[in-house]
Amino acid sequence: MKLLRHGPKGQEKPGILDGDGQIRDLSDHVDDIAGDVLSHEGLARLATLDLSALPLVEGSPRIGACVGGVGKFICIGLNYADHAAETGAAIPKEPVVFNKWTSAICGPGDDVEIPRNSTKTDWEVELGVVIGKGGKYIDEADALSHVAGYCVVNDVSEREWQIERGGTWDKGKGCDTFGPVGPWLVTPDEAGDIANLRMWLEVDGHRYQDGTTATMIFGIATIISYLSQFLSLQPGDIISTGTPPGVGLGQKPPVYLKGGEVMRLGIEGLGEQKQKVVRA
Amino acid sequence: MKLLRHGPKGQEKPGILDGDGQIRDLSDHVDDIAGDVLSHEGLARLATLDLSALPLVEGSPRIGACVGGVGKFICIGLNYADHAAETGAAIPKEPVVFNKWTSAICGPGDDVEIPRNSTKTDWEVELGVVIGKGGKYIDEADALSHVAGYCVVNDVSEREWQIERGGTWDKGKGCDTFGPVGPWLVTPDEAGDIANLRMWLEVDGHRYQDGTTATMIFGIATIISYLSQFLSLQPGDIISTGTPPGVGLGQKPPVYLKGGEVMRLGIEGLGEQKQKVVRA
Repeated sequence: MKLLRHGPKGQEKPGILDGDGQIRDLSDHVDDIAGDVLSHEGLARLATLDLSALPLVEGSPRIGACVGGVGKFICIGLNYADHAAETGAAIPKEPVVFNKWTSAICGPGDDVEIPRNSTKTDWEVELGVVIGKGGKYIDEADALSHVAGYCVVNDVSEREWQIERGGTWDKGKGCDTFGPVGPWLVTPDEAGDIANLRMWLEVDGHRYQDGTTATMIFGIATIISYLSQFLSLQPGDIISTGTPPGVGLGQKPPVYLKGGEVMRLGIEGLGEQKQKVVRA
Repeated sequence: MKLLRHGPKGQEKPGILDGDGQIRDLSDHVDDIAGDVLSHEGLARLATLDLSALPLVEGSPRIGACVGGVGKFICIGLNYADHAAETGAAIPKEPVVFNKWTSAICGPGDDVEIPRNSTKTDWEVELGVVIGKGGKYIDEADALSHVAGYCVVNDVSEREWQIERGGTWDKGKGCDTFGPVGPWLVTPDEAGDIANLRMWLEVDGHRYQDGTTATMIFGIATIISYLSQFLSLQPGDIISTGTPPGVGLGQKPPVYLKGGEVMRLGIEGLGEQKQKVVRA
């Protein structure tokens, strides 16, 4: 299934993509793509629905983040060997964990704001993992059973604030609109081989990132098990699993976003995002 | 007002402390101590209630975190000059910002769990600020108008995971039960001079921390304005503003929590917390 949320920000309704690529509304069946709906049982119930009998959503509504009620937006840093190299960082011995504030979450087509006084706003296409079943101290062998689905994330990052302003990375990772998520939450049965998905990102038509999840250092099951030693996971938590080479910081000289530019990014089978860059 | 939440974890009801120190139930008036209830208008409505006419909560119910629906649990590091010195860190030039995962939040009397494989679980008594009115790019002169109230926070920290495991501090700050919050959300009119409150923490009766908010480096208004340059604040966000000297890491040699110990901590006018330390 390809689940999604459609409508104005903060008032999104649940939806599902049908076989013709049309949006069908799920409001009669679930309140949101969130919480218990993401469990095995919740997803199994949705899978029994006759999509052709669901109300068709007319027109081209705004698409919101593909999951609601997100409690934690957990990110893994430097998780592609070539990306670590381009930023001048060592290959991490264990996963690098950081936070995006949940207030950064937005839809895949919403404008991305360059914050006031920012000169180094950058992009990162990433594979997002949405937790369906919570837990802690999860065995790696059992880890993938905790996944509700996968999605595209743009881990927008302000490099000066992330790296040069003292303390942790949190100042540069969680600004408003720095977390486009979606368009779809794709359930594992339709997501293909998550260890071998093409992923790419373009700014104004120039392809900066062109990679594959095959070059991840720590895989999805490892990451879930690892994180669960330090925190408990809940349904709706998002884990963004790192970016392949080609970020702005890694260009020689570095290239950062400017107002008026357009980002397009996608992951094979998980859909595409497109954001206009605006100044706050 | 001293607002609180009483009842089993995840099922807390809203309450308020009356003049005799008894809990009165607010369920007939608000759903939770959260969201719009924290606005000026929401708090003003509660202030008109005749407390003696509210249902008395009998017995000694569990007290939950004093605010619900927390979207962000933002922390300021090294914000007391003497504490920065005891940890060997330089005095920060601007606030150090880090994250506690919201799944770490618990009540002020709940057990604190030493996670599996932890050997360096430590304590930090802190003044918590709860946001009542959201915003971004907030002027320092206007910042305190965004505050719903103040509370005690124990910023429990795993020092090895915070400092020695690579990446940001996030592995060591947001473990389950690492964020006792409360007992009360004390509105600004009753919180006294927040720039001059005594604060203390004891483990098994030994007083390790005995400080005052007077030695904060960056004050509350500065912190709110500063943070709002990097993120938007929403009602119910908690900002924990740093700890005075006396943490376990700062002892010579360092001292860390052991199963069976009891922490007691408090801030003048904001109430006390007491947690039994258990092993996960």
